[in-house]
Amino acid sequence: MGRVINFSAGPSALPLEVLKRAQSELLNTHQSGMSIMEMSHRSKSFERILHEAKKRLRSLMNIPDSYKILFLQGGASLQFSMIPLNLLQKDNEAAYLITGSWSKKAYAEAKKVGDATIFASSEDDAFRSIPDFAESTLSKRTSYLHVTSNNTIEGTRISVFPKTNNNIPIVTDLSSNILSEKINVTDHGVIYAGAQKNLGPSGVTVVIIREDLIGKTEATTLPTMLDYAIHAKADSLYNTPPTFAIYMINLVLEWVESIGGIEDMERRNRKKAQLLYDAIDCSKLFSSSVKKENRSLMNVPFKTKNEELDQAFLHFAASQKLVELKGHRSVGGMRASLYNAMPLEGVERLTDAMTQFEKRST
Amino acid sequence: MGRVINFSAGPSALPLEVLKRAQSELLNTHQSGMSIMEMSHRSKSFERILHEAKKRLRSLMNIPDSYKILFLQGGASLQFSMIPLNLLQKDNEAAYLITGSWSKKAYAEAKKVGDATIFASSEDDAFRSIPDFAESTLSKRTSYLHVTSNNTIEGTRISVFPKTNNNIPIVTDLSSNILSEKINVTDHGVIYAGAQKNLGPSGVTVVIIREDLIGKTEATTLPTMLDYAIHAKADSLYNTPPTFAIYMINLVLEWVESIGGIEDMERRNRKKAQLLYDAIDCSKLFSSSVKKENRSLMNVPFKTKNEELDQAFLHFAASQKLVELKGHRSVGGMRASLYNAMPLEGVERLTDAMTQFEKRST
Ligand SMILES: Cc1ncc(COP(=O)(O)O)c(C=O)c1O
Ligand SMILES: Cc1ncc(COP(=O)(O)O)c(C=O)c1O
Ligand SMILES: [Mg+2]
Ligand SMILES: [Mg+2]
Ligand SMILES: [Mg+2]
Ligand SMILES: [Mg+2]
Repeated sequence: MGRVINFSAGPSALPLEVLKRAQSELLNTHQSGMSIMEMSHRSKSFERILHEAKKRLRSLMNIPDSYKILFLQGGASLQFSMIPLNLLQKDNEAAYLITGSWSKKAYAEAKKVGDATIFASSEDDAFRSIPDFAESTLSKRTSYLHVTSNNTIEGTRISVFPKTNNNIPIVTDLSSNILSEKINVTDHGVIYAGAQKNLGPSGVTVVIIREDLIGKTEATTLPTMLDYAIHAKADSLYNTPPTFAIYMINLVLEWVESIGGIEDMERRNRKKAQLLYDAIDCSKLFSSSVKKENRSLMNVPFKTKNEELDQAFLHFAASQKLVELKGHRSVGGMRASLYNAMPLEGVERLTDAMTQFEKRST
Repeated sequence: MGRVINFSAGPSALPLEVLKRAQSELLNTHQSGMSIMEMSHRSKSFERILHEAKKRLRSLMNIPDSYKILFLQGGASLQFSMIPLNLLQKDNEAAYLITGSWSKKAYAEAKKVGDATIFASSEDDAFRSIPDFAESTLSKRTSYLHVTSNNTIEGTRISVFPKTNNNIPIVTDLSSNILSEKINVTDHGVIYAGAQKNLGPSGVTVVIIREDLIGKTEATTLPTMLDYAIHAKADSLYNTPPTFAIYMINLVLEWVESIGGIEDMERRNRKKAQLLYDAIDCSKLFSSSVKKENRSLMNVPFKTKNEELDQAFLHFAASQKLVELKGHRSVGGMRASLYNAMPLEGVERLTDAMTQFEKRST
């Protein structure tokens, strides 16, 4: 079978140009005489790649020098623990904005570490919206406020981040929308993202952390590998990093540059999402249950009138090489993930398939 | 520059056949219509790869069904913490055989978790030997004895593992010699290994753990991602695993099978090591300071008479495309890592270069 249109929520489609580039130099990367996978992480060749990836990310996201960029292992899920272990100070609490399954998991890990409170939650609304947090307050003894900027499973997105009192830092899980739209980095104390949506393959997590938030823990029992201070000091080379995944991130960042950076990326992403949401809204068969103002640009859950029709549509789509459209089991129906690497043409083929399917089934 | 002979201690050389195979299917893996890097970890295509990798490892290492095989992130360094966090029981102690820098690091992490004692150490001998532990004893309240089977930096190897009283399990860091020689898995309670030497690229760690040792911790505050029970229950799919690295392991294991399995691998490895040690021992210029009975089959540190000659040799070797031969900074001199993927021809080229260099410089 030829290449398909892959709507997976992650690991997800990568730019074809990036894959071709990786393929072409897989046996001999950058004239080193060896594959990137065979390079010592202490070699000049690899250090150059690491340095380039950081420099590109810093420039694309406009990250000030007062923030460190780390490449860590363990996925965003390990960050759910590293955040409170490093930032939640004794006698303080951590506040969580609960907007979906991922923020609930983050909150659960914080509760193991210390006091964690709920800032606002849309669980009552089955996470179909971002809660109104205008009236929510934070105690002075709050170490940080954690938010999930884009809810991969439920298809919602925070467009305006909370303003906090007392310079309480916001810690943001940007896993499913990093590099997809402009973000003001200085509004956040920490940003983290698993790579497997907009950055590269799985196996590496990017952490962007304001320097003054590093080394805050009093604990002498923090495992070395969970200590941001250790990784920051060693420039992500404390132990062997996931070298190939970092190399892939560098190629993806180069591709984002070639598209025109985040602004152009956002323009493309808005157009793609608009196309799909319009198709859903105009259709009598397909619908979305997400509150309009809170709709994600990256993950679009939608459904037909019943499960059998959902199944039939998934089959029909697959026959047109439109794959990985099944919704998350907790939501059902379909979900189309439209990350950066998804071309407009892919979304057009999806909306065409929706139109055809609707005609056939009415 | 064409492909070099890469003696790196890790990440290290991979079999050329494996790299070529990965290259050939990088855009469309197993007729899925997408790259392995783009596959959802919940897809049938990826599950098949994960299953194959486990099955191959189980068969090659003769791992009984009473052991689970996990693919985790964080490197062997995260295992230094996960081991005591999961296995060191309240009011018990953990014992460590100290044979080099890596076992010292493992011991340091255990001390953060609870009581850790030294079973025996060769630090007094600058780790040029494995200590004689025949007279060492373990208290009944020992949760486990940790050993490093091959000391990557110092070039020593345990050939006979300790026998423990009271069924105290041995936990073995097999990072730098997994699959290189026959190991009796049932002599060990836990085996772990970072992939980046004999298994694949960096970014994944294999943990082989006896089922009765899973879920031993009483702690309710253990981070989910550090809990073996969670990963065992989810079959390494609790969160997004490093899919590409697992795919590469599967290819490497297939290659080991094609060579004839671990017995043939060990035969090859003994021949390679013998060739290099003979060259060192016969040479008047080169020497090894490791105790003969404890010499590693994988990592061979050696030196000339002084640092300038070492440098000159490293330059001479590089001119013949023999690279990554610089010794670890704590030991100095040279180090040749002869992992599975290093062909005998590579070692022959090294010993030839040593002979030539010795002639030239005397
Ligand atoms: C928003 C968000 N946070 C966290 C995670 C967990 O990431 P990982 O699987 O890398 O641990 C995901 C995974 O999809 C996610 O979408
Ligand atoms: C024996 C041994 N243990 C542990 C490690 C640490 O592995 P990692 O860098 O994957 O954390 C190494 C790395 O070389 C090693 O050789
Ligand atoms: Mg969510
Ligand atoms: Mg509609
Ligand atoms: Mg060592
Ligand atoms: Mg000699």
